[in-house]
Amino acid sequence: MPSADARTVAGLMAEADLQGSDGHGVIRLPQYLKRIRAGGVNLHPAIRVERERAAMALIHGDNAMGHLVMKRAAELAIEKARTAGVAWVGAQWSNHAGPASLYARMMLAHDMIGLYFAVGNANHLPPWGGIDMLLSTNPIAAAIPAGEEPPIVLDMATTVAAYGKVKAKAAKGEMMPEGWMIDREGKPLTDPRRANEGFLLPIGGYKGYGLALVVGLLAGTLNGAAMGKDVIDFNHDFETGTNTGQAIMAIDPAAFGDLAEFKRAVDTLIRDLHASQRMPGVDAIMMPGEQSHARTVAQRAGGIAIAPSLMNTLDRLAEELEIPPLRTH
Amino acid sequence: MPSADARTVAGLMAEADLQGSDGHGVIRLPQYLKRIRAGGVNLHPAIRVERERAAMALIHGDNAMGHLVMKRAAELAIEKARTAGVAWVGAQWSNHAGPASLYARMMLAHDMIGLYFAVGNANHLPPWGGIDMLLSTNPIAAAIPAGEEPPIVLDMATTVAAYGKVKAKAAKGEMMPEGWMIDREGKPLTDPRRANEGFLLPIGGYKGYGLALVVGLLAGTLNGAAMGKDVIDFNHDFETGTNTGQAIMAIDPAAFGDLAEFKRAVDTLIRDLHASQRMPGVDAIMMPGEQSHARTVAQRAGGIAIAPSLMNTLDRLAEELEIPPLRTH
Repeated sequence: MPSADARTVAGLMAEADLQGSDGHGVIRLPQYLKRIRAGGVNLHPAIRVERERAAMALIHGDNAMGHLVMKRAAELAIEKARTAGVAWVGAQWSNHAGPASLYARMMLAHDMIGLYFAVGNANHLPPWGGIDMLLSTNPIAAAIPAGEEPPIVLDMATTVAAYGKVKAKAAKGEMMPEGWMIDREGKPLTDPRRANEGFLLPIGGYKGYGLALVVGLLAGTLNGAAMGKDVIDFNHDFETGTNTGQAIMAIDPAAFGDLAEFKRAVDTLIRDLHASQRMPGVDAIMMPGEQSHARTVAQRAGGIAIAPSLMNTLDRLAEELEIPPLRTH
Repeated sequence: MPSADARTVAGLMAEADLQGSDGHGVIRLPQYLKRIRAGGVNLHPAIRVERERAAMALIHGDNAMGHLVMKRAAELAIEKARTAGVAWVGAQWSNHAGPASLYARMMLAHDMIGLYFAVGNANHLPPWGGIDMLLSTNPIAAAIPAGEEPPIVLDMATTVAAYGKVKAKAAKGEMMPEGWMIDREGKPLTDPRRANEGFLLPIGGYKGYGLALVVGLLAGTLNGAAMGKDVIDFNHDFETGTNTGQAIMAIDPAAFGDLAEFKRAVDTLIRDLHASQRMPGVDAIMMPGEQSHARTVAQRAGGIAIAPSLMNTLDRLAEELEIPPLRTH
């Protein structure tokens, strides 16, 4: 792909690892490469604004790497929110773009609130009471700027566990806790090697099913992107364009009142929550994104930790591609 | 209050009962009246637009009945979304406004998607790991128009159970299932008579805590409305203005593409989900809002069912107020 695009994608993948989203960073490179080699991604896309109004746009990703599409979407949302107060940008024909929070967080540098919704790239969730996997882990992210405190950054799948966590348990030979998955009879499934005999559970039961569905409607159906039966399982099909749908929203707090006052109110709230009395055995009250922020600060100073097995995989890829390995850099 | 306002509030309360939101309809009248008599609500408010841009507004509710504030907010959001494509209207100095879905659903008649967020009027949720009740059940609602199928309408608290459900269990002398509440040691609390010794549990554990917090930031803090420590418990304080915060969003699918095509896609998705194979013992796959829609249709034809005890309470109120009782109507 053009080297400017490669730099953008690589930068965002590194940022994912930097913030501790290990499952969505450079670990995805082998999978991305497999898709690129199979012709499943357009390396010379014409990403374009398909529809536009004062506070919205629909972007056609032309089957580009999702990172390129959603960076463009986030920038457009910020630009529009600056005048309209809020803006919503949806994407069709995008692809997997890394962790949801990466794009919601782009608003923070502009003192804006970011919201992000996406359709996941593999269906592991049936409708409540059903056994046909028609829904994905459709994630939600939100980033809210604070003053002196680190920002609040929520990044969550609408299922109790993301599917990557199940795969990690299987790789470690560990059992899953009850509540992650059920089998086709509705009984708890705790052996991750049997994962293909069951489904993920949504958070709060039927509530999480409703949330996953609504997120899918907003990020998928509304954008003319894949949702339900049309979702391509990107773990098994590397050739078909996924028509991944994502949506991002920017909200400018300065449109609602004094920005400094808003940030002070967020700081006060964070401090009140931190100061809450704790349950026995609890060391600290955490804000959403607090651990991720600490990881970013630590890794920015000390470098990003990459597991030896991943390093080996990456170096093997480098050898295949006849480029210098990471290890010698 | 002016009779036009009384008609609006009464109409929305009746609509809440019509759709089966029994806990948020006319059952609230005694509590509203108590607050009105104590001077806790402004009966002659000047509801006004405090801030405004192309795609947003902040409404000052002047401590009016929440129904009046949020109806105005919804109308303004629809008007702005018609040109801007999407619009977000927040409210400060509002009050309890009934079920969240009531306002999200207002977009449906205009072929728009509605989203609604609110800060609850009593804190029953501590931060994850904490025991100080600094958060409420902050609800989320979403309404998405379909073509031939009933619309999808999600209306959910971010806690496993809303506090009203706990009160209902206590009234019936029943125990609660595990998972609704925990005590100050983090142990399951199942006796609703001991509810004041514990807290509600968020959906999906720390995820629901994060969602409740983000909803509160968007509906409360962003609007300069009460959030965290500042939330007035409207079950115990009837005099202090609550400065309730709510936010509503309208999204016009016609801005994203062909409206009829969008509605067909929603229909197809609903039918695919309905047709899913079911788990043993499951009679039907439901969409969010499906039961509520059936209740609306049935009650519109046959009248709204009101429990005898509630009817007695209402008739006693009518007697006190020297107005004709419901029973003889």
